[in-house]
Amino acid sequence: MSAIAVPVLVIHGGAGVMDRKKMTREHEEACHVGLAQALRAGLAVLARNGTALDAVTEAVKALEDDPLFNAGRGAVFTAAGTHEMDAAIMDGNDQRAGAVAGICGPRHPILAARAVMEQSDHVFLAGEGAARFCRDIGLEHQEPAWFDTERRRAALTEELARRQKGDGDDGDGDESRKHGTVGAVALDAHGNLAAATSTGGMTAKAVGRVGDSPVIGAGTWADNTGCAVSATGHGEYFIRYAVGHEVSARVRLAGQTLEDAAAAVIQEDLAPIGGSGGLVAVDRHGNIALPFNCSGMYRGFAKLGTGTLHTGIYAGDERKVPV
Amino acid sequence: MSAIAVPVLVIHGGAGVMDRKKMTREHEEACHVGLAQALRAGLAVLARNGTALDAVTEAVKALEDDPLFNAGRGAVFTAAGTHEMDAAIMDGNDQRAGAVAGICGPRHPILAARAVMEQSDHVFLAGEGAARFCRDIGLEHQEPAWFDTERRRAALTEELARRQKGDGDDGDGDESRKHGTVGAVALDAHGNLAAATSTGGMTAKAVGRVGDSPVIGAGTWADNTGCAVSATGHGEYFIRYAVGHEVSARVRLAGQTLEDAAAAVIQEDLAPIGGSGGLVAVDRHGNIALPFNCSGMYRGFAKLGTGTLHTGIYAGDERKVPV
Repeated sequence: MSAIAVPVLVIHGGAGVMDRKKMTREHEEACHVGLAQALRAGLAVLARNGTALDAVTEAVKALEDDPLFNAGRGAVFTAAGTHEMDAAIMDGNDQRAGAVAGICGPRHPILAARAVMEQSDHVFLAGEGAARFCRDIGLEHQEPAWFDTERRRAALTEELARRQKGDGDDGDGDESRKHGTVGAVALDAHGNLAAATSTGGMTAKAVGRVGDSPVIGAGTWADNTGCAVSATGHGEYFIRYAVGHEVSARVRLAGQTLEDAAAAVIQEDLAPIGGSGGLVAVDRHGNIALPFNCSGMYRGFAKLGTGTLHTGIYAGDERKVPV
Repeated sequence: MSAIAVPVLVIHGGAGVMDRKKMTREHEEACHVGLAQALRAGLAVLARNGTALDAVTEAVKALEDDPLFNAGRGAVFTAAGTHEMDAAIMDGNDQRAGAVAGICGPRHPILAARAVMEQSDHVFLAGEGAARFCRDIGLEHQEPAWFDTERRRAALTEELARRQKGDGDDGDGDESRKHGTVGAVALDAHGNLAAATSTGGMTAKAVGRVGDSPVIGAGTWADNTGCAVSATGHGEYFIRYAVGHEVSARVRLAGQTLEDAAAAVIQEDLAPIGGSGGLVAVDRHGNIALPFNCSGMYRGFAKLGTGTLHTGIYAGDERKVPV
């Protein structure tokens, strides 16, 4: 634990049951590269003395643009063959927050969430009303087809076929292909925390389903006296356990270390009831936590000034690359 | 504090700035009667050894049917002249939860939330997808006009005119006419807690705006080891402070009494930043709290076996009536 605020960025690109034997080397490499690029985008903000809020925004924008991850371009399909994206952002300094649910249009859903926070009287906008707000303020939009990817289309076809047959999972071993989320948390040199999360939801989800990502206190949370959290996993469980706010409350009210608090929620609250997933978190001292209770979580972190980026997919496979 | 679970029910019908001089005696009387009826509906469940979950459901259904309160029939209008109702319910025993946002159709939005909890794989459904789910499972529906009331229509006309003129508030002194929420929390004889909240939102709100009511952890929360909470007020602030879960976390993690925890959140977290409103809460020992930081909150409570219902509107005007 350090008393000085050395800027830190922690990101994730989704968690789930991943069968390492079924994942191609090329896919793994591409994911490591995508995570490193997102770390660089956020770290560049922190390096020029920028805010945690801007850092998590840039990191998530990079992950949204990367079709490998389930957010923005590369978002999964709903059961109706459409995209419905959710995103949220929170500033730990003043606990301002913004969230959107069920939108398809803005190239970067995280910018939609940020605009709700900064340019509306509201915190949470959903559906057509959210879409209209995004158009009205002139956010960069893309056609629905822009978000489509072959890989997610195949996942939808497979999932719908599986449901029709009533089969178990016989996919490619990467469950995060069917759901998944991207997110980032950061501490800046001013001592402020921020969190951002963005997702396409679950493959073949019911239209209108809202997961934990845009639920402030569940998938996304930040307060300077506790910590910043971005979660990924089976969102229904993460809502029911108010995961983001619970980790912060354990740090702030119970005096637990960030690592203990995050592990307790992921391993003790969620794992026993089947709440598969993980989270990334940072506190104001720069402590970080990246627990997950499934076989893998696309993740990465970097402390400013170390010159090193850390990325990982499975447990114990952490990789170091230069900034 | 009692070690035995004597069933308790606490309800609210909205909070806000209420100018007592401008409120008619008839309106006040009708509100006391409406609150008492809702208490009776919930208490009847607890009296026959029913669950807290059923008790809060019945109390909220009664408030939804009463056009005086901003939920179900009597819901406020959006800026577009439509109704968009939100509701949530949570079972403190297993932390199951259900929520809907932006629906107009089901006569009782709280039954829509409960159906999401009990009959879907999801926790939170919004908009058209939520509406379709409610139709598919055969919930009782009403035409949009059924929810209309003269009083809410007048509030919309007035609010839109006020916005056009850029004026301050010159209404009838009852701010809860423009927003407001109904909710209930209960402890049953089995020692289980539950919370339920339902609302029409804010008069002239942007289409798609989601308030705190359906956000699990904000306007609605229940866990047996902490407490059950239903909140009412300026929802954006209640989301940013994760009000429901924060009260529970203070009880569960910091060892605060329910009264201290609820007062801290309403008076210390929210009041200084303009987060107007209040909440009702109950813990597993049957302790209750009904704090508010504005001039009034429609509220009531009853302990089983006392034969007395308590209702109130302003600070210190509590009224006792027989069950």
